Amino acid sequence: MNTKPFPSWPDVAPRLIAVAAGRSPADTVIKGGIWVNVQTRECLPGYDIAIAEGRIACVVPDASYCTGPDTEIIEAKGRYMLPGLCDAHMHVESGMLTPAEFARAVIPHGTTSMFTDPHEIANVLGLDGVRMMHDEALMQAVNIFTQMPSCAPSAPGLETTGYEITPEDVAEAMTWPGIIGLGEMMNFPGVTNADPKMLAEIAATQRAGKTVGGHYASPDLGPAFAAYVAGGPADDHEGTSEADAMTRARLGMRSMMRLGSAWYDVESQITAVTEKGLDPRNFILCTDDCHSGTLVHEGHMNRVVRHAIACGCDPLVALQMATINTATHFGLEREIGSIAPGRRADVILSSDLVTLPIELVIARGQVVAKDGQCLADCPHYDWPDGARNTVHLGHELSARDFEIAAPAGANTARANVIGVVENQAPTRALKADLPVRDGLVEGEGAVCQIALVERHRATGGVVNAFVSGFGYQGRMAMASTVAHDSHHMIVVGTDREQMALAANRLAEVGGGITIWRDGQELALVELPIAGLMSDSPAQEVSARAMQMVEAMQACGCTLNNAYMQHSLLALVVIPELRLSDLGLVDVRSFELIPLLEPAS
Amino acid sequence: MNTKPFPSWPDVAPRLIAVAAGRSPADTVIKGGIWVNVQTRECLPGYDIAIAEGRIACVVPDASYCTGPDTEIIEAKGRYMLPGLCDAHMHVESGMLTPAEFARAVIPHGTTSMFTDPHEIANVLGLDGVRMMHDEALMQAVNIFTQMPSCAPSAPGLETTGYEITPEDVAEAMTWPGIIGLGEMMNFPGVTNADPKMLAEIAATQRAGKTVGGHYASPDLGPAFAAYVAGGPADDHEGTSEADAMTRARLGMRSMMRLGSAWYDVESQITAVTEKGLDPRNFILCTDDCHSGTLVHEGHMNRVVRHAIACGCDPLVALQMATINTATHFGLEREIGSIAPGRRADVILSSDLVTLPIELVIARGQVVAKDGQCLADCPHYDWPDGARNTVHLGHELSARDFEIAAPAGANTARANVIGVVENQAPTRALKADLPVRDGLVEGEGAVCQIALVERHRATGGVVNAFVSGFGYQGRMAMASTVAHDSHHMIVVGTDREQMALAANRLAEVGGGITIWRDGQELALVELPIAGLMSDSPAQEVSARAMQMVEAMQACGCTLNNAYMQHSLLALVVIPELRLSDLGLVDVRSFELIPLLEPAS
Repeated sequence: MNTKPFPSWPDVAPRLIAVAAGRSPADTVIKGGIWVNVQTRECLPGYDIAIAEGRIACVVPDASYCTGPDTEIIEAKGRYMLPGLCDAHMHVESGMLTPAEFARAVIPHGTTSMFTDPHEIANVLGLDGVRMMHDEALMQAVNIFTQMPSCAPSAPGLETTGYEITPEDVAEAMTWPGIIGLGEMMNFPGVTNADPKMLAEIAATQRAGKTVGGHYASPDLGPAFAAYVAGGPADDHEGTSEADAMTRARLGMRSMMRLGSAWYDVESQITAVTEKGLDPRNFILCTDDCHSGTLVHEGHMNRVVRHAIACGCDPLVALQMATINTATHFGLEREIGSIAPGRRADVILSSDLVTLPIELVIARGQVVAKDGQCLADCPHYDWPDGARNTVHLGHELSARDFEIAAPAGANTARANVIGVVENQAPTRALKADLPVRDGLVEGEGAVCQIALVERHRATGGVVNAFVSGFGYQGRMAMASTVAHDSHHMIVVGTDREQMALAANRLAEVGGGITIWRDGQELALVELPIAGLMSDSPAQEVSARAMQMVEAMQACGCTLNNAYMQHSLLALVVIPELRLSDLGLVDVRSFELIPLLEPAS
Repeated sequence: MNTKPFPSWPDVAPRLIAVAAGRSPADTVIKGGIWVNVQTRECLPGYDIAIAEGRIACVVPDASYCTGPDTEIIEAKGRYMLPGLCDAHMHVESGMLTPAEFARAVIPHGTTSMFTDPHEIANVLGLDGVRMMHDEALMQAVNIFTQMPSCAPSAPGLETTGYEITPEDVAEAMTWPGIIGLGEMMNFPGVTNADPKMLAEIAATQRAGKTVGGHYASPDLGPAFAAYVAGGPADDHEGTSEADAMTRARLGMRSMMRLGSAWYDVESQITAVTEKGLDPRNFILCTDDCHSGTLVHEGHMNRVVRHAIACGCDPLVALQMATINTATHFGLEREIGSIAPGRRADVILSSDLVTLPIELVIARGQVVAKDGQCLADCPHYDWPDGARNTVHLGHELSARDFEIAAPAGANTARANVIGVVENQAPTRALKADLPVRDGLVEGEGAVCQIALVERHRATGGVVNAFVSGFGYQGRMAMASTVAHDSHHMIVVGTDREQMALAANRLAEVGGGITIWRDGQELALVELPIAGLMSDSPAQEVSARAMQMVEAMQACGCTLNNAYMQHSLLALVVIPELRLSDLGLVDVRSFELIPLLEPAS
């Protein structure tokens, strides 16, 4: 596998100098465009860009003097020449795609640099999994920098992940060529309470001179937030209000504003710049999480920039937020993020700065996309068997594995029920009186069963509980090995036979999402890599995911984002009630609680 | 000597977190000021700053909750709380002061961070000299970062310095704790021509992740400049025009605008921001060279910021140019340059953002100056004998050493004469027909003698020539061991006896500047450290320097900046004619030329 690092500026400086001086012809010249200068926030018509060795040699009014017979000429024809777009914080796994296929999907949208935190795979495969993502990232034609995951498990003591990330892992990863910093420090109570493990991870990152990503998901901007900032995270993408954005920037953090498939945090925060007039240098755009359907049908960072402009942001400022601001944040301002000498030749040609059509994409001096078509080779890592076989159930499951025994002699039972809330990540902690039949507690009405099936260590463990709100009817079940953050398997169903069928099916295909009704599989999204990702193109994965949504609806589901709700049911850091391999977790008090209330 | 590094953020994070959370009282709280926020370019009234371990723990509206009985309270009383000022490029030696005494002079002016290039001492003592400067720098209460000198000698082949700096020296220095990057790459023809030695120095710096300082002293912004930028320098302080400033910023360099004792490059360049409206993030203020008199009577970076404001710059933008912009440039934005959590607690209290009175200066949490008085200990390095005895003449000089023999039988001789030009660094290459007496060519009228006396290797070498323009009269001589960049000794005089007296006097005191007339010493500035610096306070050195200027005038000198002219006569990189230890150098053609024209 080719993971040879892209040559550094000093590696190729003699050639760049020779081209700029006119002693050596350029490899490529982009002629006659409007130089979108994010360094000075200007549009400068009538410039040429001379490229050699994948880097920019010079930007001059007329590069004829660095043009030879073998120089490739790209006519800009008066179009805008923009720096390639940067996504400052994102998870490749959210697209259900490998880094290679994610790259193939986003290159035509003009994304040439990504800062990715593979914390999903870290929970499944640990440091080895992070390394695989990192290595496939380095094989691509665009720049995929890896943020070392910081919080696996995300809730120590309340769940068992496949692997755990330690401070020693973090220190080791800081020596890898593609590691740019620490991934979002989600354990904000840990930082505020000076948890030695969290601080050791931050310290290892700071001592390596790298960037500590933040994640402070609370509206409390008082002493708890002050303490978090004092701990060292350098950015935060969890802000949702103008006050969040302003406070972060004032305290010297970079305020990352996200527009993901399900995150809409730009409009409410960008007024800090557009209305309050704060210096925009500390504001950055990102996606955090994009589904493959969004990538196929809507775009990626180009969608975010367009949205920021639609929110009233000056187009050049919005572009700075997706280019130079990001580069500066990660210490890469002399490597990416602007069209300037020495930088990687990542350039977009576009006819309009507001609608931002992405007409041609050049990455490291090569044309990688034209008119929406990816022209880059996106080589695949040779994923080992260990990464392709991660669904270890211990034994084939049957309906019996999903039985919930009632207290002896009870006719009904009062259960703690996870209440799914439409369009929200938090759940409600509900209670329901459920019928008992043949000694088993049964779901009824809006309440159906949920099970967390252990899949990392083949313990055979199945933890059963109840969930309400999906609206499922008939005899059905849905199973997924995407189950944040521990990524065991979550099975939701109205019928234990179907639940067993669905779970066994995912074990058979190595992970993914499946929906069953009356003994038939309605839809299947295969995610063979770690049970999280497909190495098929985004179009295929997106089509399969669409079939899955339709199948959920066919089973009676009425929610907008039902799959997201499903996959978050084990996320034991977001209130109020979740399910882990250790049992039912009350995320208000961070403690395990019994499924059934004791008989009174 | 205490060169223990200041504790890093991760070293003290647990304490900072505890203070910010309210679990531990702060060491110091600055109460009730206007937070000058250079991150967002805002003034925010009614804030407190809590400090612990020399760093900022939090900035909050009310820090009572982090205040204990032993917390020192500093009442801001509604004044502005500014970040300490940063000088982005400067030479300590220009003040004729050691780093410690330079610090003592500038701390009351609010300078708390300096980026210093000790390239004068590098020419005299090589890497060892740089290390001594670096070590004294690290002993101070303020932040003095060292840029590793890049160009010693500045004109290889045309002069012999005490030592030479090699790429290996640069690579070694990059491992020292106080080295922040490479000092100004003055050899711009070398970069443009891809000189392997220059590129190796740049590469060693880039590979260490540090900043390469630039110095492109030419108005040519064509291919030669494009090639220089492609070579990697990240900043430049040699711009003098608006076009210079705009071009540098557009090409992704930081445009450093200087106001030194003799440099006035802010007014002509800052219009790039104030009138052309370029994003100010890439513009930075610096001094480059300040005499001790300027430091004593006018100020330091506070003088530059005031001047920028007087030139029409918004005060907050001007402050950004002297704080956060500089910090970001050197990769230190999370360490200095703003009032934000985790950063070194470098804070100025001032009543007015335009006149900028520096009322209280806090560095690393300690009050270091109040109302113009330095309160900091400024410890001295224990300079070794080798650094204090650097004037090695080989033998005591006599008038005979300064004789210029005429061609046999000549009555007159046509000589190449260095013509000093009022208020300009460049000289003129003049010719003069001079009388011959007793077989010796003699100065006459405006023309007097100049000698370059070798002082590094005790070769006994004396190279004699002629200079015009000082206006000296009577029997006098002036000698200086400050003689850029090779720092041999330059002696200028109307009388060979006096020249010998002056030269021998500097050998006796270990270097400095002396003026003699009729066998009497009129003034002496002792510079015992490397023949370049005094370890006396700036007030004393400034007073001595003033006596020197008066003595020059008493000898008939009519020039404004006669001492500067004197000390630059050996600077063989600035046209037109200079004197080195190898002879007379025509700096238009970069070649040695004879002193006397051959008899025709």
